[in-house]
Amino acid sequence: MPYVNIKITNEGATKQQKSELVAGVTELLSKLPGKNPATTVVVIDEVETDNWGIGGELVTERRKRGS
Amino acid sequence: MPYVNIKITNEGATKQQKSELVAGVTELLSKLPGKNPATTVVVIDEVETDNWGIGGELVTERRKRGS
Amino acid sequence: MPYVNIKITNEGATKQQKSELVAGVTELLSKLPGKNPATTVVVIDEVETDNWGIGGELVTERRKRGS
Amino acid sequence: MPYVNIKITNEGATKQQKSELVAGVTELLSKLPGKNPATTVVVIDEVETDNWGIGGELVTERRKRGS
Amino acid sequence: MPYVNIKITNEGATKQQKSELVAGVTELLSKLPGKNPATTVVVIDEVETDNWGIGGELVTERRKRGS
Amino acid sequence: MPYVNIKITNEGATKQQKSELVAGVTELLSKLPGKNPATTVVVIDEVETDNWGIGGELVTERRKRGS
Repeated sequence: MPYVNIKITNEGATKQQKSELVAGVTELLSKLPGKNPATTVVVIDEVETDNWGIGGELVTERRKRGS
Repeated sequence: MPYVNIKITNEGATKQQKSELVAGVTELLSKLPGKNPATTVVVIDEVETDNWGIGGELVTERRKRGS
Repeated sequence: MPYVNIKITNEGATKQQKSELVAGVTELLSKLPGKNPATTVVVIDEVETDNWGIGGELVTERRKRGS
Repeated sequence: MPYVNIKITNEGATKQQKSELVAGVTELLSKLPGKNPATTVVVIDEVETDNWGIGGELVTERRKRGS
Repeated sequence: MPYVNIKITNEGATKQQKSELVAGVTELLSKLPGKNPATTVVVIDEVETDNWGIGGELVTERRKRGS
Repeated sequence: MPYVNIKITNEGATKQQKSELVAGVTELLSKLPGKNPATTVVVIDEVETDNWGIGGELVTERRKRGS
């Protein structure tokens, strides 16, 4: 029954990678008490780099500097 | 003053359906103590089926199997 | 399969009221295409009035003024 | 280390405005105890007006009425 | 740089289990393009069973019935 | 009309600091197009350090090491 929301920058994760991420997170959660994998929900939000800031700066700008 | 976030897979909800959902949820919340419908906010996120997992599997794959 | 997160100030909602809210929201969502009530999840967060701001002011302060 | 999620309607915020918002919020949070600006994350979600309700009504409809 | 929010019912996850969950999720995310484990954030919300609904019913009630 | 959710570790933010944070964030958002401070909502979640991971490790453990 857990619910997981994963936010990542939109930088080319493939469907295969997302599929493996969902399977992996669901398995990890099944180790906790009372968590049913059948109803575990994982939602992935892919966010534009113009809409993600870290360290007070947009990721778009950081990428331009190579970091 | 409540805030509601609804996440659904992006599978064809119409504007009319979303309008009725917002009206209905706002009315339900107005029955709780101290909740003002005028400032109740409802945000709907429509998520691609490639980005939604349940039971360890992407919804895209489930839909292919007919479930 | 929808996921709903409801945030309200912690001002005395009873278990009965929360039960009715969960039932009502789940029913509203079942009217959308492809939404299965059996796996619809509703999570209610009750937030202290010191941790909720509206109009630039904590709710705790607004309540003192009677609004 | 704080995490901030800002949801706004998608009504023309520029990259420059988002950049200033990220910088400003990060600075505000650095005034709290134990918060490191270098790892402060700010994610901005821009939401279609058809998917945002307030007062029981979609923002799309409110905008048509001029409010 | 990913951000992960995990919501689970408050049913006795230990600190050790939470520590392993954080380590495991962070490792899974490091397999995606451009994701730095050093700044990956995982926040766990433990929610009372009175505040979690599934299938239109509070988890508290489901647990009483043994499901 | 924006909605802001701020997640911080629970390490002693005072009511005064939270009040200033709410006022500051609301003012910053009022600079964006079409954002009304009167209906801007800010919700602060204070999270136990056992429930917050960064770099694959719980904050509780990092604090013990002095970082």
